[in-house]
Amino acid sequence: MQSFEQLLKQFEEHFNKRLFPKEPASLYDAAQHILSIGGKRVRPVAVLMGNELFDDIKPDAWQVATAIELFHNFSLIHDDIMDEAPLRRGKQTVHAIHGINTAILAGDVTLTMSYDYIGKVEGDVKSILALFNKTALEVSEGQQMDMDFEKRETVSLAEYVRMIELKTSVLLAASLKLGAMIGGASVGNTEHIYEFGRNLGIAFQVQDDYLDCFGDPAKFGKQVGGDIKANKKTFLMIHALETASAEQQQQLKALMQNNPADKVEQVLAIYKSAAVDEWAMQLKNQYFEKAMKHLEDIAVLNKRKIALQQLAQFLVQREY
Amino acid sequence: MQSFEQLLKQFEEHFNKRLFPKEPASLYDAAQHILSIGGKRVRPVAVLMGNELFDDIKPDAWQVATAIELFHNFSLIHDDIMDEAPLRRGKQTVHAIHGINTAILAGDVTLTMSYDYIGKVEGDVKSILALFNKTALEVSEGQQMDMDFEKRETVSLAEYVRMIELKTSVLLAASLKLGAMIGGASVGNTEHIYEFGRNLGIAFQVQDDYLDCFGDPAKFGKQVGGDIKANKKTFLMIHALETASAEQQQQLKALMQNNPADKVEQVLAIYKSAAVDEWAMQLKNQYFEKAMKHLEDIAVLNKRKIALQQLAQFLVQREY
Repeated sequence: MQSFEQLLKQFEEHFNKRLFPKEPASLYDAAQHILSIGGKRVRPVAVLMGNELFDDIKPDAWQVATAIELFHNFSLIHDDIMDEAPLRRGKQTVHAIHGINTAILAGDVTLTMSYDYIGKVEGDVKSILALFNKTALEVSEGQQMDMDFEKRETVSLAEYVRMIELKTSVLLAASLKLGAMIGGASVGNTEHIYEFGRNLGIAFQVQDDYLDCFGDPAKFGKQVGGDIKANKKTFLMIHALETASAEQQQQLKALMQNNPADKVEQVLAIYKSAAVDEWAMQLKNQYFEKAMKHLEDIAVLNKRKIALQQLAQFLVQREY
Repeated sequence: MQSFEQLLKQFEEHFNKRLFPKEPASLYDAAQHILSIGGKRVRPVAVLMGNELFDDIKPDAWQVATAIELFHNFSLIHDDIMDEAPLRRGKQTVHAIHGINTAILAGDVTLTMSYDYIGKVEGDVKSILALFNKTALEVSEGQQMDMDFEKRETVSLAEYVRMIELKTSVLLAASLKLGAMIGGASVGNTEHIYEFGRNLGIAFQVQDDYLDCFGDPAKFGKQVGGDIKANKKTFLMIHALETASAEQQQQLKALMQNNPADKVEQVLAIYKSAAVDEWAMQLKNQYFEKAMKHLEDIAVLNKRKIALQQLAQFLVQREY
């Protein structure tokens, strides 16, 4: 049983090569660019960990891990276009360098290439393809909901959770489940690992929204309050608008409309006063506990679960 | 053995239903829109014809035909964004109605949905997935080359043929070959039907470029000279720039730069004077003859080939 770090190192070695054809360079260099930006590579390592929970890592797990990371990068290329984001991890986004049209195509070929790796699976390719397709549709649905929410005045907590589930959680859940399927897990065990990943993904997003408000800037690596400045609907803002006093709700709406210079400080003060920060930590822990319960219920020896427990702890306790 | 029209009618009945989930409607209604615009449906019917050349049509052929038509529509959604096209077949394009961001996502889910139908194949899904993936990459490569050519001053005939092959021909070729594979054709026969489709696709594009210049407006259904007005590099323009007299080449370049009111008439006069129209018909016939030779070489009874012969005649002789 290997740790996240050990598997990450192996995946990086496996993945850090030219995955695209050479020509036309105007297209494939653009696609290769997003891969060179790097990333946490949590999802592909989750495939490997899902496999290793049940059995030695099989060659199919490497193909699917590659497919999952390519898929994730396809969604980043297209999301960055939609978000008009000039930078990702401090580097220029694909469309910022190559223009929107080539970026659309670069995303398209990255998505197609992910299916090429699915096609290299020696085992039950149909089951793997089915879960991969279902997940791919859900991720796009989540992105559409996210865009739809931006145009709406109010979003309920349940709607936001559903959006996060689709946009973020299901890809982590599917990565773990695909690995488990390759590792020969029973249907019951694959369902538990999926639910582990789904709940963990939501807990991860609660932490993400929390850090944006209450993270330590020294550790967080970026300015606090970015979501507040952008009027983003987050776990914290939605809960504040649902539960703070009528006066506080009015203040929040006025702050979002008027964008004063001290907007971040004022919103944070309301969050503190309405105990939104404590609520967020409780919510995160609820999802985290649900995730851990599903991990417990997987019928393998406890010692095999240590790596996944550590990954879970890291994802929800990280301060950056 | 059924005619193109008979198979088209059956495919339309099969395809003209809601293929996407209902929610989120903001995403899937946008994707469904492109399907409702309709189309010639040549490619999915080619899958069915490729199957029936060798054997009765199997359920897998319907899945792959649906996948191919979905893939084609995915590429139309994204191409229309890149071309900034407001209309397709007289109806508003997806991005014109729903905005670029939703149109990008609508294309993405249409592509993913095409893989969902590939995943329903009962037979050798890995071979089918491999050809589908290879073709999908090539179509994007062709689109990128097309965009690259727009920015270049000169494009050679060989380069243009390669671009058309990728952007247009390989999808027709792959449709026929996928059908043949499902029909149980030998490797040699699947290669011949692929080459039949590839050459036919190029002949089709020569006819397309020819009709834009010399089509009968009454039959053609659109104004003659659209490519000339847009300074598009076509078979005719590339050949004229390569072979017309030095004086005519200078005239063509000046016309493209200055865009006079009678540009179309002047360019057409040069084409006629340099016999570019006759050359185009010869070129079309060369590719058509190559295609028919490959159809001849397929080892099945001649009477099974009648429908494909009729389709080929229609595609290169059509006047609209």
